[in-house]
Amino acid sequence: MRNFKVTMAYDGTAYHGFQRQSNAASVQQTVEEALCTLLKEENVTINGCSRTDKGVHAREFVFNFHSESTITEKGVVFGLNALLPGDIGISKCEIVPDSFHARFDCKGKEYEYLVHNSRIKNPFYAHTAHMHYVTLDENKMNAAAQAFVGEHDFKAFCSTACDKKSTIRVVNEFSVKREGDMVSFKVSANGFLYNMVRIMVGTLIFISDGRIAADSLPSIIDSKDRTKAGKTAPAQGLYLNKVFY
Amino acid sequence: MRNFKVTMAYDGTAYHGFQRQSNAASVQQTVEEALCTLLKEENVTINGCSRTDKGVHAREFVFNFHSESTITEKGVVFGLNALLPGDIGISKCEIVPDSFHARFDCKGKEYEYLVHNSRIKNPFYAHTAHMHYVTLDENKMNAAAQAFVGEHDFKAFCSTACDKKSTIRVVNEFSVKREGDMVSFKVSANGFLYNMVRIMVGTLIFISDGRIAADSLPSIIDSKDRTKAGKTAPAQGLYLNKVFY
Repeated sequence: MRNFKVTMAYDGTAYHGFQRQSNAASVQQTVEEALCTLLKEENVTINGCSRTDKGVHAREFVFNFHSESTITEKGVVFGLNALLPGDIGISKCEIVPDSFHARFDCKGKEYEYLVHNSRIKNPFYAHTAHMHYVTLDENKMNAAAQAFVGEHDFKAFCSTACDKKSTIRVVNEFSVKREGDMVSFKVSANGFLYNMVRIMVGTLIFISDGRIAADSLPSIIDSKDRTKAGKTAPAQGLYLNKVFY
Repeated sequence: MRNFKVTMAYDGTAYHGFQRQSNAASVQQTVEEALCTLLKEENVTINGCSRTDKGVHAREFVFNFHSESTITEKGVVFGLNALLPGDIGISKCEIVPDSFHARFDCKGKEYEYLVHNSRIKNPFYAHTAHMHYVTLDENKMNAAAQAFVGEHDFKAFCSTACDKKSTIRVVNEFSVKREGDMVSFKVSANGFLYNMVRIMVGTLIFISDGRIAADSLPSIIDSKDRTKAGKTAPAQGLYLNKVFY
């Protein structure tokens, strides 16, 4: 029995998130079905590094699975890419120690959030960025966002549907940059709460638009009150960018 | 009664082409329904500059419609953008002479075809470019493609489903260029036959792959035989880029 660690990217538009659902297409089910075909095994379960919401994308998503198959690592990459639809791509496969688990061994992650900031509606970003027509101040947002860096209780930046025991997380880095019409929010942390990045981004957009004061982030964090933070930014702008082990 | 000329872009992934269909979502139907709501009129018919196939995109598509409405040009742009889904964007609206017709007055068009040429499957191009794993020789294809320029009978580069009386067209320019992993084919002509660009691109890919000789394009054109040309390249790589009046 070998343990395969696989890295993939996906456009989440057509999926109801990574995790298998009883009544909707998920990335997990799509990959597991392709693996069953490829390995000629009846049940293959993959351990994903993370859940992702409906419509959220991944540039680097890691999963692992155990198999008796004698297939090579290259065989997994080429075979899965041939069997999977165009919106899921496998980039790497390695054999790892039996104990490796993509979720439990994850030390941190980096997310990117893209906002297409233009008065001209670009239909080619409809599913891959959030549209914001009012001009955003990326410097103001970047300065404010530094209040997120460090160990904090992020309860105010967590969906009320969140079921995690502790809401304390360590944010290592937060940057807001512009390239032309695209504003990019990048955040890395040792872990994320449900909707945490999308609420952080929504709050920073409110700060840029003047609906929340630029210096109020520390007090919003301290309040541990979700209603003090901004709106949850929509799913289609969010990318799981990197996974750290 | 005023005549409105409107320029739009769309991601064609979710549509069965521009033209209204009885049993499937089309760009035309989506825009006409939005116009009926915006103008509070019961039937608004738009004249599109072209048909596009299922899954084909447009960066600049022109249509016109007549209306008694007193709405401003800006009102059409903002109103339609608010009512239309994210994958259709309106960029411009002008009042034009009553006789203007987006299709009949069209003097020529430019198409672009995108091929993502990489050994690494990129899921973010699944619906917006054609994937080709074998390295393409853009210089060889660009040199060969110059045989298309000029007035020719393009019957060999027309789907057998084509119902046009004359298959003679004038190609003004054809260029093949690479930027990183993306190979772009640009062609402008006074008109195009059904699937013409996609068959031209498929034939050039066969030339790059060595399945058709680089110097055989003039004789393929002369043959007027569809079976001598290459495979029709898939719809998702094709963009209507510009419309000339």
